[in-house]
Amino acid sequence: MRFIHTADWHLGRLFHGVHLTEDQAHILDQFVAFVRDSRPDVLLIAGDIYDRAVPPPEAVALLDDALSRLVLDLRVPVVLIAGNHDSPQRLGFGSRLLSGQRLHIFGSFSDDLTPVVIEDRAGPVYIYAVPYAEPPVVRESLRSDLIQTHQAAMLALIERIHQVHPPGKRSVLVAHTFVVGGLECESERPLSVGGAGAVDCACFAGFDYVALGHLHRPQSAGKDSIQYAGSLLKYSFSEADHNKSVSLVEMDAQGRCNVEKISLTPRRDVRCLAGYLADILKGPKSGENPQDYLMVTLLDTGAILDTIGKLREVYPNVLHIERPSLMAGGELHGSRTDHRQMNDTELFAAFFLQTTGEPLTEEQRSAYAAVVNAMQQREREVMP
Amino acid sequence: MRFIHTADWHLGRLFHGVHLTEDQAHILDQFVAFVRDSRPDVLLIAGDIYDRAVPPPEAVALLDDALSRLVLDLRVPVVLIAGNHDSPQRLGFGSRLLSGQRLHIFGSFSDDLTPVVIEDRAGPVYIYAVPYAEPPVVRESLRSDLIQTHQAAMLALIERIHQVHPPGKRSVLVAHTFVVGGLECESERPLSVGGAGAVDCACFAGFDYVALGHLHRPQSAGKDSIQYAGSLLKYSFSEADHNKSVSLVEMDAQGRCNVEKISLTPRRDVRCLAGYLADILKGPKSGENPQDYLMVTLLDTGAILDTIGKLREVYPNVLHIERPSLMAGGELHGSRTDHRQMNDTELFAAFFLQTTGEPLTEEQRSAYAAVVNAMQQREREVMP
Repeated sequence: MRFIHTADWHLGRLFHGVHLTEDQAHILDQFVAFVRDSRPDVLLIAGDIYDRAVPPPEAVALLDDALSRLVLDLRVPVVLIAGNHDSPQRLGFGSRLLSGQRLHIFGSFSDDLTPVVIEDRAGPVYIYAVPYAEPPVVRESLRSDLIQTHQAAMLALIERIHQVHPPGKRSVLVAHTFVVGGLECESERPLSVGGAGAVDCACFAGFDYVALGHLHRPQSAGKDSIQYAGSLLKYSFSEADHNKSVSLVEMDAQGRCNVEKISLTPRRDVRCLAGYLADILKGPKSGENPQDYLMVTLLDTGAILDTIGKLREVYPNVLHIERPSLMAGGELHGSRTDHRQMNDTELFAAFFLQTTGEPLTEEQRSAYAAVVNAMQQREREVMP
Repeated sequence: MRFIHTADWHLGRLFHGVHLTEDQAHILDQFVAFVRDSRPDVLLIAGDIYDRAVPPPEAVALLDDALSRLVLDLRVPVVLIAGNHDSPQRLGFGSRLLSGQRLHIFGSFSDDLTPVVIEDRAGPVYIYAVPYAEPPVVRESLRSDLIQTHQAAMLALIERIHQVHPPGKRSVLVAHTFVVGGLECESERPLSVGGAGAVDCACFAGFDYVALGHLHRPQSAGKDSIQYAGSLLKYSFSEADHNKSVSLVEMDAQGRCNVEKISLTPRRDVRCLAGYLADILKGPKSGENPQDYLMVTLLDTGAILDTIGKLREVYPNVLHIERPSLMAGGELHGSRTDHRQMNDTELFAAFFLQTTGEPLTEEQRSAYAAVVNAMQQREREVMP
């Protein structure tokens, strides 16, 4: 059995105000060509298909085009789940009908854990696809009051899967979750504010392969057969050093997997430059694409007129400039921590401290977490 | 050949602040049962599937459920076009794939006019489905500068259809348009501000049946084989006297059609009551549903405390109250025209007159129309 595992396409994403539609179309063209050449038995897409619940119409058209080519032109079945950025209902439109075309979309969470079964010469492989769902949604659906955390939800689900899975048969899990110890980056939205968002990789014992989405850096989680495919593109400057890839997995008759990471070439890379303005204005070294999306850290200390204008004459897609020398000096910056390095919870705690003179109590902290989690659930249009 | 023609479902509609999802689910259940019992060869839905470009997720789930039951459970092919309320891209998601399941969605306008062909014992019927499109979109797509109006766009399209249609074979057109002379009501959004929105029914010569959407009152347009199915429900109080229906059409081997209007029973009717408060508070006559959505016109002249509270004790779904006696007297009302009876253009013209003392010139009137038409196109997310 050969399959391709990808995730976190985030179609419709804005990057520092730039619509990435063309970059995404470019990389999807390459991806489709790769699928055509590698002839997999199935393609797995582990969530965050879109960047938000209501993606722009261009992103809808882009996904439609890519899936139509994969499923109809290349005849590759696709298993696709919703991530925490997707609206379960919107993504799930037509899923009953589309499954007849071998496009298996798992949008809304359901207690029906019927697998997609794909056969190769060694027999069937059972693919269990679990769309992202908040613990209250899983609790309601499985009618179990014990489910309060993502860990408990995942354990309950996997227990159900093990109950129905035919012993000795090969199995794959597709899920969108955060595994303890995973390396995060700035473009992921935390699954849960307040610390109940992580799942232990020991949950996944028994599956021959676990195709994960959520973390944008390609990485294994605990063992080689539990993989994050990583995002399609670099979606923040914190990912400049990532090597984005899709995973080509060969599974043998016993379910043992060999995972190969395949790099695609984006239309424009995302890079960070640091140096003095005069040096940077000397322009790209040979082999560097001047059209790349750039963050520039300037070491100059004095005033510079029209910094961005000067830089964009050489690098048209400079999106962000940092000037650490200007940040360090001012009294206005208070505690001198860089607020851009703080997550929402830290930011709120700092604001609270600054305005009230008191640190957040545990009770206040969990009240804050409850509000933010409920808000994120609404943004994703999850029915209460 | 037997087919069912319906239109203007407007899923996700708000009616005086009330979400109609449950009413729409109720009527769709009845509709699906009717389709099951009448066993048509095909179902035609002539646009305005949703009420707006981005419908609420409940509406998406409702459409998904209805279409899945019709196509998968009842095995009835469906031909469905976008209307002027639908987003072409969003509605069209998956259309290539879904057509393999015999759900034929025509979202974005295309110059590919390939028909859906349905066979009965007398041979094929060619169904040409034309999604709603603004004249500039048709002009661009067909590369014809002559297309400036809806009439010109429709003529150009139909000419193309006649060029490819095999002579002597039966044909049906599905379109979302406003035919000259049609009876309008308040819940339709004009296709074009400024008078270029109407199409002459003579355009449709040559088709054995024309399944139209847009006007919410079921009506024929010029002849019996050109029909507006009307909306699924009453979507304004101006429709209180409508007899909403779906059309069951029997077409013989020569293409002659017999149209039967089938009424469905809504969960709650939309009605207007007029009288003195004391009389109305006596409550519904036998056979009247007190849960109906009501507009109440009170003839009382004096002050009444908590009118809506009193009325809702008897009729919980009173949505609007009119008190003509209070309107007639005041000096504040200026010219004493009721602004609620005016369309947007009239309203703007009156405002302009009131603030500048001058009536709109022809030039200003067409500038206004251009702005409003462009705005409506953006709202529908039509790519420029």
